[in-house]
Amino acid sequence: MEQRKIGITELALRDAHQSLMATRMALEDMVDACADIDAAGYWSVECWGGATFDACIRFLNEDPWERLRTFRKLLPNSKLQMLLRGQNLLGYRHYEDTVVEKFVAKSAENGMDVFRVFDALNDPRNLAHPMAAVKKHGGHAQGTICYTVSPLHTTEGYVKLAGQLLDMGADSIALKDMAALLKPQPAYDIIKAIKDTYGSDTQINVHCHATTGVTQVSLMKAVEAGADVVDTAISSMSMGPGHNPTESVIEMLEGTGYTTDVDQDRLIRIRDHFAGITPKYKQFMSAITTVDTEIFKSQIPGGMISNMESQLKAQGAGDRIREVMEEVPRVREDAGYPPLVTPSSQIVGTQAVFNVLMGRYKVLTGEFADLMLGYYGECMGERNADVVEIAQKQTKKDPITVRPADTLEPEWDKLVLEGTNIEGNNGSEEDVLTNAMFPGVAPGFFKARPEGPKNVGRTAEQVAADAERESGASKAVREPIRYKVTIGDRSSTVSVEPA
Amino acid sequence: MEQRKIGITELALRDAHQSLMATRMALEDMVDACADIDAAGYWSVECWGGATFDACIRFLNEDPWERLRTFRKLLPNSKLQMLLRGQNLLGYRHYEDTVVEKFVAKSAENGMDVFRVFDALNDPRNLAHPMAAVKKHGGHAQGTICYTVSPLHTTEGYVKLAGQLLDMGADSIALKDMAALLKPQPAYDIIKAIKDTYGSDTQINVHCHATTGVTQVSLMKAVEAGADVVDTAISSMSMGPGHNPTESVIEMLEGTGYTTDVDQDRLIRIRDHFAGITPKYKQFMSAITTVDTEIFKSQIPGGMISNMESQLKAQGAGDRIREVMEEVPRVREDAGYPPLVTPSSQIVGTQAVFNVLMGRYKVLTGEFADLMLGYYGECMGERNADVVEIAQKQTKKDPITVRPADTLEPEWDKLVLEGTNIEGNNGSEEDVLTNAMFPGVAPGFFKARPEGPKNVGRTAEQVAADAERESGASKAVREPIRYKVTIGDRSSTVSVEPA
Repeated sequence: MEQRKIGITELALRDAHQSLMATRMALEDMVDACADIDAAGYWSVECWGGATFDACIRFLNEDPWERLRTFRKLLPNSKLQMLLRGQNLLGYRHYEDTVVEKFVAKSAENGMDVFRVFDALNDPRNLAHPMAAVKKHGGHAQGTICYTVSPLHTTEGYVKLAGQLLDMGADSIALKDMAALLKPQPAYDIIKAIKDTYGSDTQINVHCHATTGVTQVSLMKAVEAGADVVDTAISSMSMGPGHNPTESVIEMLEGTGYTTDVDQDRLIRIRDHFAGITPKYKQFMSAITTVDTEIFKSQIPGGMISNMESQLKAQGAGDRIREVMEEVPRVREDAGYPPLVTPSSQIVGTQAVFNVLMGRYKVLTGEFADLMLGYYGECMGERNADVVEIAQKQTKKDPITVRPADTLEPEWDKLVLEGTNIEGNNGSEEDVLTNAMFPGVAPGFFKARPEGPKNVGRTAEQVAADAERESGASKAVREPIRYKVTIGDRSSTVSVEPA
Repeated sequence: MEQRKIGITELALRDAHQSLMATRMALEDMVDACADIDAAGYWSVECWGGATFDACIRFLNEDPWERLRTFRKLLPNSKLQMLLRGQNLLGYRHYEDTVVEKFVAKSAENGMDVFRVFDALNDPRNLAHPMAAVKKHGGHAQGTICYTVSPLHTTEGYVKLAGQLLDMGADSIALKDMAALLKPQPAYDIIKAIKDTYGSDTQINVHCHATTGVTQVSLMKAVEAGADVVDTAISSMSMGPGHNPTESVIEMLEGTGYTTDVDQDRLIRIRDHFAGITPKYKQFMSAITTVDTEIFKSQIPGGMISNMESQLKAQGAGDRIREVMEEVPRVREDAGYPPLVTPSSQIVGTQAVFNVLMGRYKVLTGEFADLMLGYYGECMGERNADVVEIAQKQTKKDPITVRPADTLEPEWDKLVLEGTNIEGNNGSEEDVLTNAMFPGVAPGFFKARPEGPKNVGRTAEQVAADAERESGASKAVREPIRYKVTIGDRSSTVSVEPA
């Protein structure tokens, strides 16, 4: 029996630490793994985009473009892969087409190979231009289907979307399951139907999170249905709200008709590298270590729940999370059943919080109003006309039916002017793009950039101290603490510290 | 399409806490979940046997028979299930047939329904008598195949063993994967072959650990091959060296041709109950929270590695674990490829440590010598004749080829005499059996029994303090503490409290 080769995309350098440790991993904690990653035989190495760009400039004082160039140098034999939010690029609003093209051009120029392009609403109009830009600049254009569950989402609908992506010239289709909702049977059905409809040489990449504990089985079924590449994370950076382990997915295929080209000895070295790194980021780590199947009921991804919880707590209403979780599906229905993924998950979640705290649709967030008025694009379902009217009244904006970016004036020249006027900018188009996407953060970053990267992980000494404290071998007092001490009838305030 | 019903065995009350928290969970921490467990619609509830009997009397001052009777009372609608080590019962030596029958009779009398009977060597001669005893006393006799990997273990071999178990009158066959080595394809092949050979109405139960991250897929393939019941643990007591989550396995089946009768609302309550309990046992918890695929290479189960490590450390040779891990497969081969499961895993592991520390087979443990001389039964492979000779010389014992229990004299009357002479025994046959299996522990337990169960978990207050300390909000001193402080030759009593 001839074995079919399955490709693997390694997520350790991007989505794994984004999902497990709030995107805080510093480049310096990745570089020593790169030689092994480069030689392991992955189909691609996801290492950029998503939230990493934001985290680099906001938390790590790292230039994201420099990070990309470093990966390009350290992974000369690998296809580098990024996650691109369609017309939003890596920011949180729609950009005009010349900016989108500039960003794609600069990403390709700095070394990016595979662009996984998605839109939070699955609106193909938001994907067409970025996909065309990727193709124009020689990248691999991967058109993405965001998988979600609703009364309107069907296998046929996903197949249709796949066709639209192929019509845009997609080099491959990604089935992206950001909330771990993709069960084995739908995984099989969707992929089988896409292959049957558009031909078995249609490349399909599958991206699942592990949160619900079912998706490794979904990857198996996806492979059986014809999937070509699956996304995994090295075991020491896997599971929980992250992804299925690379090693387990490879072992799972043994004896089936499928095989991979990945070098397992390299995987051991990669695993050991990150096993040594993760304890540094413990304070950012997700508390989920087992599985969470409640998501199937609520369809609310874990990260969204913790966001809503902190919003409620900030309003002194931490006890109302259940009400908010019941409100989310209603808000989602009113919005026409968007998938819940950045930024739609935040937009829907925040509006649900507003509805519970202030009365249903008494106050709309600006973003939710825009969503209702079509400024993010079209969803699968009709929007609730009453809520659209409220949005119109509140914002004095008219609903649109055109592609959102078509309402934007050309803005590149203006962005160049803005960017190059900021103190500390280096005059590059890369800096212009950084500021365009994060105008609130970039100026501070440009100023601080000369100080160099700031690793927010704990030091080796702190990690050792943590381990000692956990083993119970610690001293009770490890840093100066002030106590009130009473001797007889005399009280004093004293400071106690290790001698 | 008609859906095939898949049964679920819930492991929370036995193997889940045995695997995740060293079998330390007290009965009182389980009772509040029992009403929901009883109503959830499981095929069976595993709640007794394995290491729980030992742990009850050694660590928890709990009468294991009383625990069984309590479960019988609290789970009136459920089939109670236990794990029985064949002729070893729940102890660590072979028992003579009348003792085996007495143990089975007493277990059934106290409420046990399903007896999963296994032998560490897969020697059917060690299973025949306990299986017959189960049938005689009205229990469900589940004959067990211990799954392992070696050059001699084949699908055909497992099918043959299944046939031998069915010839003994097995009501069902368990495929037991204690080391998480069972990959999807072999799971499918073995179960399919058993069904094809002995008929589709041959009931097959599948037990997998989750350690390697592949076995949820194996459960899916097992179901596709015809498996009737799969073992799972409620999500808050799952994963790591434990088992696949009940909720995830049920969700995984949605839309396939398979369904379960389990009530998911009950599962949420069971999950929440144990989510509240597990933090009490943190100090006993396995450190593995992600997956370990190294087992596929070494075939050494996780628990065995930590055992060998502590043996090495005790000898000041903690740095020689790699040598020992390389020695294990050699020792296993010399012994004829036993599966590595209690007690064969300990016997092989300890001999590997001896070989590394003292030279290969310079000193045999008594247990390893017995294994080489046939006193545990027959393995799949030939034993190394040279090592058999060493065992013979060292122990002055002859090798045997008969069933090990056939070399034993009737011992029940002697055990009754011994047991009923121990201070604190209650005159019951149950106490005689407790002492027969754990003669080193039972006398102390009988004496301490009137003091009642000792919960070794942390209290709610300690758990809260742990959580606070982890959140970093703690001060080292949280309530007034009195110290004697000596400075030079002057001592004072000092009270310290948070200021």
